[in-house]
Amino acid sequence: MKATYREVKADILSKITKGHWAPGSLIPNEVELAETYGCARATVNRAMRELADDGLIERRRKAGTRVRSSPVRQARFDIPLVRREIEDKGAEYRYSLAARAVEEAPDWLRARLQLEAGARALHLVCMHYANGDPFQHEDRWINLEALPEAEEADFTQTGPNEWLVATIPFSTAEISFSAALADAALADFLACDPGAPLFTIERATWFEGDANTFVRLTYRPGHRMTTRY
Amino acid sequence: MKATYREVKADILSKITKGHWAPGSLIPNEVELAETYGCARATVNRAMRELADDGLIERRRKAGTRVRSSPVRQARFDIPLVRREIEDKGAEYRYSLAARAVEEAPDWLRARLQLEAGARALHLVCMHYANGDPFQHEDRWINLEALPEAEEADFTQTGPNEWLVATIPFSTAEISFSAALADAALADFLACDPGAPLFTIERATWFEGDANTFVRLTYRPGHRMTTRY
Repeated sequence: MKATYREVKADILSKITKGHWAPGSLIPNEVELAETYGCARATVNRAMRELADDGLIERRRKAGTRVRSSPVRQARFDIPLVRREIEDKGAEYRYSLAARAVEEAPDWLRARLQLEAGARALHLVCMHYANGDPFQHEDRWINLEALPEAEEADFTQTGPNEWLVATIPFSTAEISFSAALADAALADFLACDPGAPLFTIERATWFEGDANTFVRLTYRPGHRMTTRY
Repeated sequence: MKATYREVKADILSKITKGHWAPGSLIPNEVELAETYGCARATVNRAMRELADDGLIERRRKAGTRVRSSPVRQARFDIPLVRREIEDKGAEYRYSLAARAVEEAPDWLRARLQLEAGARALHLVCMHYANGDPFQHEDRWINLEALPEAEEADFTQTGPNEWLVATIPFSTAEISFSAALADAALADFLACDPGAPLFTIERATWFEGDANTFVRLTYRPGHRMTTRY
């Protein structure tokens, strides 16, 4: 029976972890490995791609493939809709729209999303609750030049994220994680003390080159975003 | 010329984003798609895997592949060595060991790493500087039952992360991001005010089933961890 890509990957991995292939050393090319394992080159290629994704090997077109001396680990985080995040915990989801206004995009937002002077934006402030307790505060801007239909959308019953997902199925995004202090307004929304440290996600998304939205998501105190890899 | 997987992926993506294939709908199987695009099934498979990784489609062995109605976006973060993180910013890296002690693993650590009663651990407190300014505080525990050689290792010149990477090329990890407040000790180390909000990464790693280390990395105020996807 031919070796599967999982078997090939496991074998290469053990050669690296057991030190048979030292950090920095060149490893055999795909043709040679395919012969060694008696499998298709595509099988070796898939194993090698995953090992590269895992940060264990470095593939260079001309210089060949080497064992990385300092692995760059990649962590992958699922970014689900907050409704799903809450329901996956077995909690009841509730949504509330706290504020809605059409405004000229402020300077910082124009800079961040590369909008033209005078661009109009829809500004929404929303809360997401788990079993009645504050879970996440959402401060959202939607670029009305790119998404004029947002001005007519009803955000009183469902959050803008769900509306965006249904309206624009895909986009590129820039996401960043940081820590912020609860100011008086956030402390009120999240029912915590002013000055509490809050885990924060900021995300800007584009669709086919146009910026469509910027959001700052602030979680209740103690929130942890966890993944295994 | 045969279609490449990138071309296949781009075409399927445009069918989804333009709404030709609606959210929730079943999409043709790989054999049919390979015929449509005049390419190998492996080419279609690779395109589909990436679209699934991107959270756009959901693949089920028996039920077939559907367009996701609510995409689960995955964000990938590179977790490089802090030396590399600092040097990549063009800054000069400096390392300092602030404390070293061999201790009986405290209860919380034993629980977290599933260590036996009486397990010994090496506790290290380190600082990483960028151009002389505090960048990251590292509070590290190494399980001496799994890695007894750590007790003899010299951590005065290079940090434990670099030693671990050289000693244990691969492991599984649990990683979490959160926000913490600077206490008096952290404020001293990071040259910030007590009460400042600090972005924090905690990571536990295992190698072949044995827990080897737990670390809490606390960044200077204002630190952001950013990625594009």
